[in-house]
Amino acid sequence: MKNSIESMDRLINSFTKLPAVGQKTAERYAYAVINMDENAVKEFASNLVLAKQSIKYCSVCGNWSEEEVCNICKTRNSETICVVKEPKDVVAMEKVRNYNGTYHVLHGVISPLNGKGPDDIKIKELLNRINQGGVQEVIMATNSDVEGEATSMYIARLLKPLGIKVTRLAQGISMGSDIEYADEVTLTKALQDRREI
Amino acid sequence: MKNSIESMDRLINSFTKLPAVGQKTAERYAYAVINMDENAVKEFASNLVLAKQSIKYCSVCGNWSEEEVCNICKTRNSETICVVKEPKDVVAMEKVRNYNGTYHVLHGVISPLNGKGPDDIKIKELLNRINQGGVQEVIMATNSDVEGEATSMYIARLLKPLGIKVTRLAQGISMGSDIEYADEVTLTKALQDRREI
Repeated sequence: MKNSIESMDRLINSFTKLPAVGQKTAERYAYAVINMDENAVKEFASNLVLAKQSIKYCSVCGNWSEEEVCNICKTRNSETICVVKEPKDVVAMEKVRNYNGTYHVLHGVISPLNGKGPDDIKIKELLNRINQGGVQEVIMATNSDVEGEATSMYIARLLKPLGIKVTRLAQGISMGSDIEYADEVTLTKALQDRREI
Repeated sequence: MKNSIESMDRLINSFTKLPAVGQKTAERYAYAVINMDENAVKEFASNLVLAKQSIKYCSVCGNWSEEEVCNICKTRNSETICVVKEPKDVVAMEKVRNYNGTYHVLHGVISPLNGKGPDDIKIKELLNRINQGGVQEVIMATNSDVEGEATSMYIARLLKPLGIKVTRLAQGISMGSDIEYADEVTLTKALQDRREI
């Protein structure tokens, strides 16, 4: 009879479904909920359902959106498309305030080990957008790991024949980091792409 | 325009109200919620409200309960009362399967630095229970820190004149831990309370 209160057990169980939340953390969250104001809990609950119900995927770029076509697709310069792996990468990219182009969310990367081929991610949709014309540049902003690099290379090879300029985010030393601790691949890239100051 | 989707921002904001959840973690949780099945999200939301609404404090021991008097108070041996700081300590103690007594939750400890005196925690309620008779032993299971020890000493001094046996959880080396890393206070206690084998 670990915790004999059923509604508590159910709430703890719900919390364990969040990423990286185990039994102990879920218990702590559940205790915090019990100590919250009742209105705050009701608001929390309605925010959950509201977010889930109102957020769909933008039919153009595949990013989250409350409408059929997201704000970014509607208002921004569609000549440049920045290709990312997941919707949360859009959030990260949006912190770059002077990017005025649109996005394309792949919803995954090519990963043969996990059984994900080019047809399992939204490459076809990207090609459709490009075939509609008007796209000048595609910026590959997939992660800088093996799968991200491979996906980026694959898409670049598909797009080059179409006469589209395909670029990749620059790789090099992160701001604020020590050269001493930079790994050799990063240093190699940084040296290759050195620029005059 | 960090994250332009309002319902998402509101959900993230709700998650940041949980203990030790910052912006990044809240974002991760919110993304997970969006990727969940809609029924799972609805269940999560109803579990939140249900737990908050159905859990009150037991009028006898102060532990969480869905009823006026909790199951433990109703069914267990009321001759022994185990005094703890918070409801979650009851959950921990309940993992000891052969404890058959009841509990008393203080809802805090005496902590002059935080402006908490003996009247701010549920000591009066404990005395009332004892005055009703039938209690043989009170086990102090407050935390083993300065405030927990002080509270335990304070309550022991109140109860001794009433002829109640007051005990404290044994202190010593934790199971599985290295003597090498035990602090000196713990080692001193462990040596003092050594027992024949």
